Amino acid sequence: MTTHLRQSAPAQARQRYRDGLVAPTSGWAAGFTQANLVALPQEWAFDMLLFGQRNPRPVPLLDVTDAGATGTVLAPGADLRSDLPRYRVWRDGELVDEPPDVTALWRDDLVTFLIGCSFSFETALLDAGVPVRNIEQGRNVSMYRTNVDCRPAGRLSGPLVVSMRPVPAAQVVTAVQVTGRMPQVHGAPVHVGAPEALGIADLSTPDYGDPVDVQEGDVPVFWACGVTPQAALMASRPPFAITHAPGHMLVTDVPDSVYRQP
Amino acid sequence: MTTHLRQSAPAQARQRYRDGLVAPTSGWAAGFTQANLVALPQEWAFDMLLFGQRNPRPVPLLDVTDAGATGTVLAPGADLRSDLPRYRVWRDGELVDEPPDVTALWRDDLVTFLIGCSFSFETALLDAGVPVRNIEQGRNVSMYRTNVDCRPAGRLSGPLVVSMRPVPAAQVVTAVQVTGRMPQVHGAPVHVGAPEALGIADLSTPDYGDPVDVQEGDVPVFWACGVTPQAALMASRPPFAITHAPGHMLVTDVPDSVYRQP
Repeated sequence: MTTHLRQSAPAQARQRYRDGLVAPTSGWAAGFTQANLVALPQEWAFDMLLFGQRNPRPVPLLDVTDAGATGTVLAPGADLRSDLPRYRVWRDGELVDEPPDVTALWRDDLVTFLIGCSFSFETALLDAGVPVRNIEQGRNVSMYRTNVDCRPAGRLSGPLVVSMRPVPAAQVVTAVQVTGRMPQVHGAPVHVGAPEALGIADLSTPDYGDPVDVQEGDVPVFWACGVTPQAALMASRPPFAITHAPGHMLVTDVPDSVYRQP
Repeated sequence: MTTHLRQSAPAQARQRYRDGLVAPTSGWAAGFTQANLVALPQEWAFDMLLFGQRNPRPVPLLDVTDAGATGTVLAPGADLRSDLPRYRVWRDGELVDEPPDVTALWRDDLVTFLIGCSFSFETALLDAGVPVRNIEQGRNVSMYRTNVDCRPAGRLSGPLVVSMRPVPAAQVVTAVQVTGRMPQVHGAPVHVGAPEALGIADLSTPDYGDPVDVQEGDVPVFWACGVTPQAALMASRPPFAITHAPGHMLVTDVPDSVYRQP
């Protein structure tokens, strides 16, 4: 373990996952940006890049690699095939496996998209005194498919997926302002209150993640979510794709503060 | 001309250009965003989209069309083949023509990139009391190729091109703050003072546009420039491309205020 003493916290976390640890990345290397991962064959890469360009709230692209590359400028030295704790493998839009390493599945034509994650703004909310109920309750954030369609791009289309955080009514404005200054990690909420207007019938049965208790005086606040591309993969059925498993992100070397606007 | 009375100012301007007027768009439909245009065959579109993703300061993408499309969400009703006052046609990286209409040259495989333009922030600078010398002097802004390389994307690479505006020393901070709030139209300056550090030997001989007089007490301030993609086309030589002619932009229906952050 002595070699770890010379490594930064993000490099240490990636080393642990590379060595076989499978665990959600929440709370690891606090203060450093974590990223969603989507890898697609070059033949589908234009559609995915355009999907991100047209839907920047759910799909804020932090980096896009060259075809076949296994590294990223966001985390020099990282190997994208092994340094996340868990992956998802998709064939024809169906989830077929959730392995801890995808080195054996990697292809020279894969283009990797690294997408901002709301973990970055949760830190900023806490810094501003806004409670984050999912953290308080030790649960994954609640996520929902909505009745809002993303803007299609070529063969890719699908619904907007949102994350929901209950915010005390008096602090909704602060939550909007704080996250609005971080557009590369989903930015300001897309919706405040009235889940039925997004087609969400019951907050207690999220489509992804865990139910999170809404306390007396809390208002449900909805942010665009990085699971949106996975919903588009399911709807659009490219022949092959690799993504991170929800909550099992790429830990980058980029401080969260880089994505906070003054 | 009575039909024009029912048209918005941007639609009126586009109608004039469609009817044959050839003139720079500066000052037309004030308060509405103007955009740089680059149209490339689908086979090069991924590289261009990635070039924009990797170089957001010089290439802030406001919209990217589907292949063959002749319209844009930025200006419903506009025809991208005829509604700019003047175009440039490129073959193998060489400028071969500057026609006022490209309908006859259009191809079903062209993907069009619409890129933010610094005209939007010039209005914001004036609103903040910062003089804009090129407007005062009735000249096109000065633009320079620099010794800074853009981050390459596939087959596309090239130098960063900057525009320069002389700003009174006491107002440089205001200029940084005002334009920093408009990242989709090039955002904050990339460099203040010291043109030699960018490889610019002589401010009075710009590579594009007109020389602009620097007054006593002015500091040269440099912003990333939307001509950068044209420099990449010249360096990277795709077989075919259409762009706007410098200063002859697409006038959109989008108010400049949309691109100002609070």
